[in-house]
Amino acid sequence: MDLKQHIRRIPDFPKKGIVFRDITTLLQNPEAFRYTIDKFAERFQKKSIDTIVGIESRGFIFAAPLAYKLGTEFAIIRKKGKLPYKIVSEEYELEYGKDCIEMHEDAIEDGQTVLFVDDLLATGGTMLAAARLVDKLGGEVAGMGFVVELDFLKGREKLLKYNPNYDILSLVHYKSEAE
Amino acid sequence: MDLKQHIRRIPDFPKKGIVFRDITTLLQNPEAFRYTIDKFAERFQKKSIDTIVGIESRGFIFAAPLAYKLGTEFAIIRKKGKLPYKIVSEEYELEYGKDCIEMHEDAIEDGQTVLFVDDLLATGGTMLAAARLVDKLGGEVAGMGFVVELDFLKGREKLLKYNPNYDILSLVHYKSEAE
Repeated sequence: MDLKQHIRRIPDFPKKGIVFRDITTLLQNPEAFRYTIDKFAERFQKKSIDTIVGIESRGFIFAAPLAYKLGTEFAIIRKKGKLPYKIVSEEYELEYGKDCIEMHEDAIEDGQTVLFVDDLLATGGTMLAAARLVDKLGGEVAGMGFVVELDFLKGREKLLKYNPNYDILSLVHYKSEAE
Repeated sequence: MDLKQHIRRIPDFPKKGIVFRDITTLLQNPEAFRYTIDKFAERFQKKSIDTIVGIESRGFIFAAPLAYKLGTEFAIIRKKGKLPYKIVSEEYELEYGKDCIEMHEDAIEDGQTVLFVDDLLATGGTMLAAARLVDKLGGEVAGMGFVVELDFLKGREKLLKYNPNYDILSLVHYKSEAE
């Protein structure tokens, strides 16, 4: 299945010159949504994953069904101030300023094998912060699955520079904004 | 299965006097998570649902796996300014001030049967606004599934006053903050 045909191209969102890759059209197609989840399952199910981690909020859309399918634990990473229990947090750089993500300190146990699933790999800033959160909690990152990867933003390089052992799967690639 | 034992009670979050019902502990238990999704499926699968709608962001955690399981379309409702395409929006009252939720205008087709799935039914304000969004798009609400219902906030009454035909299922009920 060609997933790319189910992703809507929206020029100039959220600002001029940026092309937004809209996955809501993929979600409206049950076969495409099922194919997406099943592709992640096919690639990662042999890795004995203990916990799948989803990042607020579009990440939950793909990470939660995979946790359901594979029967793993499911843990969430949220923006600052949203989680009610004891947390660990990690700051990361944005184009202008900083942002912060948080995770419950008991979301992952020491030595657990973790799989990240997210909608988009762009610059990799958020995912790198997420990986650091899991490192803080003693988890071992077995893989990262993305629906869309914007190759020209080199997020993959950033993640592999941090840890060359990451097993990264992206289902759809864009080589430029023009595509 | 007694789902309640998998929900963590956190007093004074987000503010003094409020007890937060934390479902992250439920997500950490694969059997409890599976049971939750399967209970929704059991109740609603005979209703010929076309589209399951999830509300940002905890709602996605339960709505997306159910859409995956039942093979329905999946549509999302988000906070103001997050969706990239043409939207319909709906304001609703908060304790102090107002909030606004949005949906893509092509998320639901005229006449489609819609099921809402969310983590929490409290005062029902958000869900009522969500129901109005679906009404605007010509969808027909066949049901609403919640993991947790705070009975003492009377959200169910508010929803049934708007439309007495709603089929509402909550898996866990709390009769008071003290519980």
